[in-house]
Parts: sequence; structure tokens; C-alpha cells
Amino acid sequence: MAEAAARRRGRGGGGAARRAERSAVRIETAKYIERNIPNFEVLTEEALDIIEANAETVLEEIGVNFVDNPKALERWREAGADVDGERVRLPKGLARKLCATAPKEFTQHARNPEKSVVIGGRNLVLAPVYGPPFVRDAEGGRRYATMEDFSKFVKLGYMSKWLHHSGGTVCEPTDVPVNKRHLDMLHAHMTLSDKPFMGSVTDPSRARDSVEMCEVLFGKEFVQDNTVMTSLININSPMTFDDVMMGALEVYAASNQGCIISPFIVGGAMAPVSVAGTLTQVLAEVMAGIAYSQLIRHGAPVIFGAFVSSIDMNSGAPTFGTPEASMVTYGAGQLARRLGLPFRSAGSFCGSKLPDAQAAYETANSLNMGLLAGVNFMLHSCGWLEGGLVADFEKFVMDADQLGVLHGLAKGVPVDEESQAMDAIREVGPGGHYLGCAHTQANFKSAFWKSELLDYKPFETWEEEGGRDTRMLASERVEFLLANYQQPTLDPAIAEALLAYVADKKASMPDAFM
Amino acid sequence: MAEAAARRRGRGGGGAARRAERSAVRIETAKYIERNIPNFEVLTEEALDIIEANAETVLEEIGVNFVDNPKALERWREAGADVDGERVRLPKGLARKLCATAPKEFTQHARNPEKSVVIGGRNLVLAPVYGPPFVRDAEGGRRYATMEDFSKFVKLGYMSKWLHHSGGTVCEPTDVPVNKRHLDMLHAHMTLSDKPFMGSVTDPSRARDSVEMCEVLFGKEFVQDNTVMTSLININSPMTFDDVMMGALEVYAASNQGCIISPFIVGGAMAPVSVAGTLTQVLAEVMAGIAYSQLIRHGAPVIFGAFVSSIDMNSGAPTFGTPEASMVTYGAGQLARRLGLPFRSAGSFCGSKLPDAQAAYETANSLNMGLLAGVNFMLHSCGWLEGGLVADFEKFVMDADQLGVLHGLAKGVPVDEESQAMDAIREVGPGGHYLGCAHTQANFKSAFWKSELLDYKPFETWEEEGGRDTRMLASERVEFLLANYQQPTLDPAIAEALLAYVADKKASMPDAFM
Repeated sequence: MAEAAARRRGRGGGGAARRAERSAVRIETAKYIERNIPNFEVLTEEALDIIEANAETVLEEIGVNFVDNPKALERWREAGADVDGERVRLPKGLARKLCATAPKEFTQHARNPEKSVVIGGRNLVLAPVYGPPFVRDAEGGRRYATMEDFSKFVKLGYMSKWLHHSGGTVCEPTDVPVNKRHLDMLHAHMTLSDKPFMGSVTDPSRARDSVEMCEVLFGKEFVQDNTVMTSLININSPMTFDDVMMGALEVYAASNQGCIISPFIVGGAMAPVSVAGTLTQVLAEVMAGIAYSQLIRHGAPVIFGAFVSSIDMNSGAPTFGTPEASMVTYGAGQLARRLGLPFRSAGSFCGSKLPDAQAAYETANSLNMGLLAGVNFMLHSCGWLEGGLVADFEKFVMDADQLGVLHGLAKGVPVDEESQAMDAIREVGPGGHYLGCAHTQANFKSAFWKSELLDYKPFETWEEEGGRDTRMLASERVEFLLANYQQPTLDPAIAEALLAYVADKKASMPDAFM
Repeated sequence: MAEAAARRRGRGGGGAARRAERSAVRIETAKYIERNIPNFEVLTEEALDIIEANAETVLEEIGVNFVDNPKALERWREAGADVDGERVRLPKGLARKLCATAPKEFTQHARNPEKSVVIGGRNLVLAPVYGPPFVRDAEGGRRYATMEDFSKFVKLGYMSKWLHHSGGTVCEPTDVPVNKRHLDMLHAHMTLSDKPFMGSVTDPSRARDSVEMCEVLFGKEFVQDNTVMTSLININSPMTFDDVMMGALEVYAASNQGCIISPFIVGGAMAPVSVAGTLTQVLAEVMAGIAYSQLIRHGAPVIFGAFVSSIDMNSGAPTFGTPEASMVTYGAGQLARRLGLPFRSAGSFCGSKLPDAQAAYETANSLNMGLLAGVNFMLHSCGWLEGGLVADFEKFVMDADQLGVLHGLAKGVPVDEESQAMDAIREVGPGGHYLGCAHTQANFKSAFWKSELLDYKPFETWEEEGGRDTRMLASERVEFLLANYQQPTLDPAIAEALLAYVADKKASMPDAFM
């Protein structure tokens, strides 16, 4: 689509027109959000004490399973856990003690140092959708994702002002063999963007490949001393840690790379139907996972994750943007802060099949909740559709635009003399208007968040221009952005070495599609 | 549309089919929201002190205008204000002292006592869109509103579970003369619904008619002792109180009826471009308006209102769901609570021309903000479109469904033994699932908010059924609800007396269309 648009422009307009259009696209990335507003806290201290005590009881009495992972069981035994088959029971206090060595916050370096992010504290880092096997756009409908789609999403993420992170599996490139696609995905993040990114977790060997590719990109020494990836380690809720995910965690923790340790919960199926019960299980699972990361390496950077949706009890479908998911997220944020750990949750979650009103209600509910819950790393912050089965091109730019609202909210309310605006109120007086007054002239450019997508035109103009809905406006924006994409520069020697690494790795093994 | 649908059904199906369909519609109204969650507060005590001091300075130094209202100026003079022409300057402390006699909360009675609402405290009462001259639906497009449209909205509001209030001018019935339409509007609220409603404010005589109609509906004695209307008194920001609105306020306050005293602000035009400056002006205006209501009658029930949008500085269009409007709303809530007054703000605000993703993002941003800002009375909580120019039928039911999310959020997080769900966690254990466990069986029906509109079906089913978007689903729901509407019973003598009142009033004056 991008190529077609570029050709059309090439044929139709002159160089001046092209330049004018190009100059309208400013590739600018906002700094990660530093909140100047409080967190919204729904649980009392007493409630938090009860949930923490219950989580300790769960770890001690019930325990968690580490599956197909004798080495992990050995590590647990040495640490003082009660190991019975694959079941690991942790005496009260053990998990919390181990979690205490994880850093409160950490820096994930980008190859462009201006785009490095600090994860934790009062910060919020925004990363795009992760994992969908399908893509959708208005023109092509719903279809299996390809590497070409993947590259387009990385380009759109690179061009988004409000997105701080390039993400990981923005969609599954199903046209590349399963055992090789991580190489192409990492290569795309490393070369088409200069924002920070995530590593592969689908096999420990692929996690090692991810580290090696980072050594090519950043230099081996730099990677030894610094965190250059943050990767997603899901827990099989309830309370099961499988060998693939733990294998990837072991690689990353050992090399001091960041990991999100994240229960993946559809409430009522993988956790109790109640908020307090879900929080208890989430806390027990995360503490066990993070404790394990610290057994691998004291001080390994980790994030307290909580992916939570509720369920439609009629159909069994996961539901998003619901009050119960919000309450779990608010509560999990409080628990993470009490543990002194960075927190990951929320995103552009929705169950809708189309980027329509349902999608937007659900997404806005979740994005707002994520900001106020004190989330530090928001995966899936744009582009998610259909319960995560689909990465949608239009919704990607629609959501990415809304992320600007979060940046605006996080600023809080300055009450310095200029903001008090008493001179303006005196100047204008009863019955006047502020449009031309000195205070407005001095401040209007930065006073209001400005959408780059939404329609504010008078009705008549809007109608004359075709009465476009948000999806159509977004479709045009996708095409415009891709047509105007310009690749960030990269040292040619590094670019060549990355290509060679990928080619060598691919040549070293047969294709696998399962 | 309702009639057509009913006819279709009458022709096509038998009585049994009709009954089955009808029995699926349960007319049920949730109690007004009683928050079990904290308010979200963005301003520090120091910032609030500054804004309050500045507002007092504004009232003393600059003052407010009471236009074409010599009686009001006389009242102000007697109360100790400095009156110069139409300008009223209030010595520091005067407005605050007068505001202190207004009640912290008040009950607005509905003719069905189960639907009476308590406005103030930790409560949130939800009322529909107010004021649009146009309506829109998917079938008929955008057009001038008529009395038939008005009646349909009242019916939809009556049938909405999550709407506590029937509202006022849900749309302007432009096919009825300006000087008579308040009679038809009130008659519709009184007879097609049994929820509480609002009175006319477009002329003091129409406010008197509203009180008289209430005397017919509720009985003269009941109205003398009780509040049966809450009406909307807008301030012409900056700092101008016109005679029409003040005339209506005088009527309502004198008869102990509720009024929202509400600045109507497009930031940057009617108030400074800064949040702190806007809050200062809002506070000064509301304090002056509420102080005036208490000059009319000590103890008259009033609400601290704040209608605030931001502005697109390119086009001058008002914008909605923006971070700046949210910050003003959060701050205004804090100021209202410090004054000890009920607070009105937020709503289904959006600038979009269609009930699409833009509309839903903007609306969800505003609804969520309203709940967390501690709003007590939310006018416009469903059906608003195109900056308030349009009342949209599909969006009315879409938004009304989302109001269920607010009800769910307000519940907070119970942490009693049943909610802790420790037995469920023990029963299921690592690797199991909760779908069939005893705790889930006992709690799943009430555990999750359930949409009556949104789509959660599997992709294949959804596609087979036509791949409908939210607007199409909503369009079907509007038709279904109107076809199944059943009028609440009313004493025939009262019904007849109301009709006679309206007929007599209409006969007493010539039609006016301006």
C-alpha cells in the first residue's frame, strides 16, 4: 500500500508538492511519560494486608508448578523451598525476600540514546500491540499477518510521537518459518526503528539469538553492562511456569536483560471470579516468578506484570474495558508499588472485530485506567483488536493518537503565576472573550493537546469532504505515514553485520512451521 | 420507526412470538450510584488555596455583571455588594458566606418514589443529553429534531437500566412553537416516564409553568415541601448573568426547586487557556451564582456546575474528551467538595459527527473522568454527538450501555471472605481452571458487568451474522426497545388534568417561533 501510494504521488505531483507533503511529517518522539498526577488507589491498607497474607498462604500451602524444568526445581530446593515433584511450595516470606533484590527501576537503552527509557518510578513507557496472528485494514480485511505487515507496523511505531517503544511481536509474520521469524522480527526493529524493543521468548535458543543480535547492534561490552531488551514472560495461570518461558527468562535474567513476569488471566477461567481472589493469585504468581528470576541473577531487571481480562459468562469470550478488569489493575498497581517493582498492565484492549465505537470505548476505558493505575510499562498500547487476535492498521494510528491524551493528563495542573492567569481575567472582564488576549497569545500553542487524526471541522465542511468516519481518516493516515517513512540511519558496518548474522543463523537450521 | 416495527411484528408473528420478545425486555432501573471508590484529586491543598484566594480577588476586584435585572442589583446591594451599573463586586468572603446556606445534598423526588434520587454526597445521578436542535440515526441521517423524536428519547431513557433521570430538553422539538414546547416536553417526561426530570429555563414564565405542571402531577402541597425538579441555569462566561436565566433561577429557588448553576466554558474563548485560570473563573462564577440563589431563598437546593470543553486553536471548534477538560473537571470537583456542594460535570461529550470510534474515545474519556472526579449529577451522560448539536439515537443506547461500566467501577473491591476466594484457589490448584468450581458457580452471575449491546461472539459467528459494527447493533437495539416500550401507569385523573393544563396554556397565547 505504501509503495502504491508513493507511486501515485510520484506520477501525479511535482517534486515541490512531494516536498511540501513530506515536510508536514515530523518524526518526533515524546519523552516517556513522567507522571505529575497521583495514582488512583481503590484498596485500603487493610485490604492490601489481607491479600498479601493470602498470597503467602497460597505459595506455602498450595505452591506453584515448574514444569519440565529439573534445574529450576534444584534451584528452588537450594533456596529453601519445599519441592514435591514439580510442585514448589515457598515458606512464608521467602518469595518476598528474593523479590527484594530486583531493582525498583531500570534503564532500557535504545540504539538512539535519546530514546532510551527508564522503566519504573512515576514513569510510563508505551509499547505497541504484541502477538496477533492476524492483521486487518479497511482495504484488505482480516488476513494472516506477514513479515511485510510486521515491517509496516514497526514503521508506524517509529513515526508515532507518543509511542516510546518499538515493542516485540507486533504481529506474527506467519510467512516466515516459526524457528526463523524471530531473526527477521528483531532485524526489523533494529533497522527500521531506533526505539527500544523486545526479545524473543518462544524458545531459550531464540532468546540467546536475541542477545547475540543485540551484541552486534550495541557492541558486546555494552550489552554485558546494560539492559537493551525487555521481554515478555507469561505465566500459565493458575500457577504454572512452563519450561519454554522459564528457559527464556533464564537466558535474559542471566544476561541482565529485562523481563516482564506476567500472569495471563481471563477472570473466571484462569483465576477466581472475584477481584480480591484474582489479585491474590496474581500476587502469588508474580512473586514466585520474580523470586525465580532473582535466583538466576540477583538484581536482574524485572517488571510485575498483570494481563487481566474478564469473561462473558454466556460465551466464554474474554471481555475488555470492563469494570472488573479495571479494579484488578488498580489493585495490582498498589501491590506492585508495595513490592517496590515496576508495573506492567493495561493496553488498547478490546473485544470488537472492527475499529468501531465498541473498540474505542473498551480501549479508552483501558488506557485511562492504565495511566491512573500507575502502570510503568504498557504493552499493547495501540493496535489491538478482536481480543488480541488481530493487529489493526487503522486502530494502530487511532490508538497512537489517543496516547497523546495520556501524555496530557500526566502533566497535572501547574499553578504558577503564569498558569493562574489573573492578568488575563482582569484584561478580559465580564462579557469579553479570551481569544485575542495577551495570555492566550503567549500560551495557546502548548495549552491544549492536539489530535493529529480526529475531525473537528464544521459539519458542512466535513460533509463536503465525504463525511468520513474515524476509520477512513485513519486509513488515509496509515497510507500517508507509510508513504513518508524515512529509515533512521545506522552505521553501515553494523547493518551489514546484522544481515550476515541473520543469514548465517537461517542457513544453520531447516525451516520449521510448528 | 417504533410504529413501523410494531406493525411488522403484528403482521409477521403470532401472539406467542410477540410475548416471548416482550418478556425479554425487563424494565429495570438501577439505583443511583453510591460510590465505594475514592475521588481522584489532582490539585494539592496549596494549589486549591491559591485558586480560592484568586477567585475571591476576581469577585472583589473585577466582579460580575447581572444584566437587565434591577431587582437582582437591589438584592446584591442589600447583601453588602458594591454595585456599579450592572457590575456587582463582592467583598472577600461574602459569596462564600452566602453559599454556606445551600444544602450539601438534596432529594429530587420522582413520581415513582423508587426512582427518587439523592443528589450530593458520594452519589452519582445520570441524566441524558440536553439541548441539541438536531437528531441523527443511521436510517434517517441528520435532521431537525421534532416532538416525535423527543418522545422516543424519553422512552429510551425510561427503558435504560443505568439512567436514573429522564433529563430535560433531550432534543429541541423544533416543530412546536418556541413558547409552547416546554409544555409538550414536560408532559412527555411526566407521562412517558416515571423518572425524575428537569424544568424549563428559557423564560421565567416557563419556569412558573413547570412548577404548576408539577403541582398537577405531584399535588400542590407536595411541591411546596419537596424538590421535584432540577433545572439547568447556565452562566454566560466570562462572569455574566443574564436576566432570562436569572429569572428562571429566581422562580425555582423561590419554590425550593433544584438548580444547577453552571458556567458554560470553551477554554481559551470564555476562560483563560490554562487549567488553573479556568478553575479560578469557574469558582468565582459559581460562587456568585449560588450566592445569588441563596439571596432568593436560604437553603434553596443548588449544584456547583462546570461545563468545560477545550478548543481546537486552528478552527476554533470546541473539543471533547481532552486532557485539559479532564483536569478542569477533577479540580472543579475538589473545589465543589471544599464548598460542601453537589457537583455537576462531564457527560457523553464528543466532537465527532458520527457515533464512530472518535465519538467513543472522547465519550469514554469524559465518562471515566466524570466518575472519578466525584461528579454527583451528570447531565449529557448519553446520546450527545457533534459538540452537542445532535442527539443521536444509536449513540444514546451505546452510551447508556457504557453507563453500566460506571456502576461496576463504583462498587469498588469487596475483600470479605467470599471475595477472597481462598477455597476456590485451593480447589483448582496449579494448572486447573475455575469455570466449574463451586465459587464460580455461586458468584458468576453477578461477578461481571454485562453489556446488553456489545459483540463478544466468535469471529465466524459474527461474520455469518453480517459483520455488524456497533452502530448497526445499536440501531437494532433502538428499534427493539421502542417496539417493546410500555407506558408506566399514571392516575387517569392526573393524566387528564395534565392534558387540560397543557391545552389551556397553549390556547392562552399565540404561537411564537423566535
